[in-house]
Amino acid sequence: MTQHAPEITLGEIARRLEATLDGDPARVVRAIAPLEHAGPDAVSWLGGEKYASQLATTRAAAVITREGVAVPDGLAAIRVADPDLAVCTVLEALAPPVPRIPTGTHPAAVVDPTAQTAGAAIGPHVYVGPGAHVGAGTQLHPGVYVGANARVGENCVLWANVVLREHCIVGDRVHIHPNSTIGADGFGYLFRDGKHRKIPQIGIVVIEDDVEIGANSAIDRARSGGTRVGRGTKIDNLVQIAHNCRIGHDSILVAQVGISGSCTLGHHVVLAGQVGVADHVKIGDGVRIGAQAGAAADAPAGATLLGSPAQDAREALRQVLALKRLPKLMEQVRELSKRVERIEPPANDQG
Amino acid sequence: MTQHAPEITLGEIARRLEATLDGDPARVVRAIAPLEHAGPDAVSWLGGEKYASQLATTRAAAVITREGVAVPDGLAAIRVADPDLAVCTVLEALAPPVPRIPTGTHPAAVVDPTAQTAGAAIGPHVYVGPGAHVGAGTQLHPGVYVGANARVGENCVLWANVVLREHCIVGDRVHIHPNSTIGADGFGYLFRDGKHRKIPQIGIVVIEDDVEIGANSAIDRARSGGTRVGRGTKIDNLVQIAHNCRIGHDSILVAQVGISGSCTLGHHVVLAGQVGVADHVKIGDGVRIGAQAGAAADAPAGATLLGSPAQDAREALRQVLALKRLPKLMEQVRELSKRVERIEPPANDQG
Amino acid sequence: MTQHAPEITLGEIARRLEATLDGDPARVVRAIAPLEHAGPDAVSWLGGEKYASQLATTRAAAVITREGVAVPDGLAAIRVADPDLAVCTVLEALAPPVPRIPTGTHPAAVVDPTAQTAGAAIGPHVYVGPGAHVGAGTQLHPGVYVGANARVGENCVLWANVVLREHCIVGDRVHIHPNSTIGADGFGYLFRDGKHRKIPQIGIVVIEDDVEIGANSAIDRARSGGTRVGRGTKIDNLVQIAHNCRIGHDSILVAQVGISGSCTLGHHVVLAGQVGVADHVKIGDGVRIGAQAGAAADAPAGATLLGSPAQDAREALRQVLALKRLPKLMEQVRELSKRVERIEPPANDQG
Repeated sequence: MTQHAPEITLGEIARRLEATLDGDPARVVRAIAPLEHAGPDAVSWLGGEKYASQLATTRAAAVITREGVAVPDGLAAIRVADPDLAVCTVLEALAPPVPRIPTGTHPAAVVDPTAQTAGAAIGPHVYVGPGAHVGAGTQLHPGVYVGANARVGENCVLWANVVLREHCIVGDRVHIHPNSTIGADGFGYLFRDGKHRKIPQIGIVVIEDDVEIGANSAIDRARSGGTRVGRGTKIDNLVQIAHNCRIGHDSILVAQVGISGSCTLGHHVVLAGQVGVADHVKIGDGVRIGAQAGAAADAPAGATLLGSPAQDAREALRQVLALKRLPKLMEQVRELSKRVERIEPPANDQG
Repeated sequence: MTQHAPEITLGEIARRLEATLDGDPARVVRAIAPLEHAGPDAVSWLGGEKYASQLATTRAAAVITREGVAVPDGLAAIRVADPDLAVCTVLEALAPPVPRIPTGTHPAAVVDPTAQTAGAAIGPHVYVGPGAHVGAGTQLHPGVYVGANARVGENCVLWANVVLREHCIVGDRVHIHPNSTIGADGFGYLFRDGKHRKIPQIGIVVIEDDVEIGANSAIDRARSGGTRVGRGTKIDNLVQIAHNCRIGHDSILVAQVGISGSCTLGHHVVLAGQVGVADHVKIGDGVRIGAQAGAAADAPAGATLLGSPAQDAREALRQVLALKRLPKLMEQVRELSKRVERIEPPANDQG
Repeated sequence: MTQHAPEITLGEIARRLEATLDGDPARVVRAIAPLEHAGPDAVSWLGGEKYASQLATTRAAAVITREGVAVPDGLAAIRVADPDLAVCTVLEALAPPVPRIPTGTHPAAVVDPTAQTAGAAIGPHVYVGPGAHVGAGTQLHPGVYVGANARVGENCVLWANVVLREHCIVGDRVHIHPNSTIGADGFGYLFRDGKHRKIPQIGIVVIEDDVEIGANSAIDRARSGGTRVGRGTKIDNLVQIAHNCRIGHDSILVAQVGISGSCTLGHHVVLAGQVGVADHVKIGDGVRIGAQAGAAADAPAGATLLGSPAQDAREALRQVLALKRLPKLMEQVRELSKRVERIEPPANDQG
């Protein structure tokens, strides 16, 4: 499974990490894996105390860890201040080359003569419409569609079959994974005379710099103005962002999240998987919402929410626990009622 | 963000709306925006009483509103009977041109010689299979796939990378947004000898006239017969409709709704975001189901449902409120038990 | 709707099923449909006792059923040991031909000269990258992308616009429906200095033999090592499988299921629609999880779970029922409190 990976010595890893190495600097590794899965050709890492017991049994060649952590004999230790960050560096070192489209336009692409694509790399079966602009260093993988007058910045990667509709704007260093759709019409109808009349969706989508969007996600164009995703925000697969939403910077939207129309999300928001947000809801900076929750009302900055409808997490957990005890509570009330009955005087007015 | 939009005078807007104008008919606007976001080049509207206070502070050039609503000096008023409908007209007036494929077949399309596509507009990288029929005025944007013997009516728009599999039937004026899949195999297996044996899915999908389907949605072909979406029904992004479902006319399915196999939905049904419907469930005309609810049983016409499992909305709300008070109820029962204990006679049989 | 279907006689059906036929062997049918929908040109089946009353009113030409089941006069009976399996055979007999790409490479495909595609069928607008391998008998429908060094086994079907990214591995007889994405980057970031730094996702996806994957689904490549889907597992539409998951063999993942990173699912697991599984969760063999449930903790083999958070199904149902009665319980406690008050002695210490 790892035959495609390059190899690297422990010494070279230590050098790149500016780390101390307790072990053989000439030993070669070809993979990085969790302690319990690592083989003798892999480096591993100690991610947290709860995995410390696995140090004794791991087959890894070396472990990346902090100073002062005891490591068994025979297991090399690479000691760094930030093991998680070090793992990133090792992953980069072991990464096989990622496919790149050569700069220029593949003969099987169709690029409108009025489009500007100088310095861009345009693969086969790509379509770039009239007046569109694709920045230098940007890769359009096979099957990508860039609509008329759309603008894609520099050093972006649009993976295969991504659709970016007309007039939409994408910043620099944006990555969009396969089969995602940016700029489809927002979902808006006016119910008149028993039918749904389409409300024109004449706005656009603006994706700011350094955003990443997963596979098979959809971000709708605004009814008017723009649907906006702030710089550095990361969006997972199968996420829905409806028209006129404004997502702040450096937020995280995990897979299958759905955000209804005209919502405002702050900065550094984290929405876990399958969360839903009702229309026009305002989510403050730093809000965290747990998986499958449904945010039906505004959430102040810093709130942590759970449940559907979503509420303060501690309150929601208290209710979950209470609900577990509810069948027993019902028995207790029945029993209590009998006890009261026993001590009640016989009465005519108990009706 | 709106540099692509045409411009229009207030006078011209009033003329198209057959409205009265209190203000300068020569004033030019280039955008339409909510009162709180509108700039001086935008027209706005008063959508409901709850936004009336924004009239005093809006920077809009004009507001579309009903007769009799007080509007501050300096803000032009365009008075109509149906402001929401008027907004549609203004949006149409300000809409930038939507990309259109020229009638005929692009040289980079592959159209089987037995397909009928007279009067249709077929873009680059489109595939149309043998025996398929694409009606006059229909646009197939780049990357669309129309399978063998499929039929698409007149004046439809299939956006980039839509896949319509073999034998499926699409009516007139149907819009399907990018990356959606119509007619993939239904999900059916027979568990025999420890394995899942595929049940052939030999039916089709029928999409009636005036349906709109969002981006990245999937509507599966029937096991036999047809999966059917009734005329005028509107389907949002990332919606799943399983095999053999029958959806009535003029219904609304919001993003990420999932409908299991062999369900029947009536007319004018509204399913909010992320609703799930279990297999073989019948949903009556006019039923409304709230976001994230899970309909596990049939729902009579006109019902309003909430929750998972879904139930009558008022009942569900009562339970949500009761659950919030449950931790306190537990304390009350504990306290009550103590009070009873205090007044109970010492007894031998309380065991 | 069924004009595309072949026709078959009841006698021929009985012959193929090795069944006994009570009825006219020369009668022709062109469709198979449930008892209540079947017309006189259709064969039907008795799927379970609860439909037995429909035998009296069905318009079907014949019914497939078990020995010993009473069938009204005038309705032919085809008697078999396993009616459901017989239905599969009839569906196969009545199936219209499924489109096939001719073996070889369509001139409008782009296949890197270093790719190996001997015996494969490669349609128009397909891209196959350098070093990729596509096995004999495998069909790549229009718009498919197979990245560099990816491997697809024999007799697979990748429907239109499927994206399989570099280095990923697909076994034999795998079917992937349109617009699905295999091998997009896993969703992993390290939050440092106020920004999300991307964790390289250098692993792959491994899809074992006989897997079927629905439309518009996404299975992410591993951070390192592989995301793995076991042989014979069937995955529906719009399903999300995050990086480093390991799904066992012969499992079922219904539409819109979302599985977070590094989960382990056993064999013969069934996840109903819209189920979510939190990261690092282990789901044992044969576990069944009901629609919309959220598995936040490990589940032992054989467990049946419901609810969000998911718990033992019987326990969850008990709580759902108890919650329905909670508003009434609150009244009872209020009433009980009044009864206690009535019999309590006047006291100074009740404060």
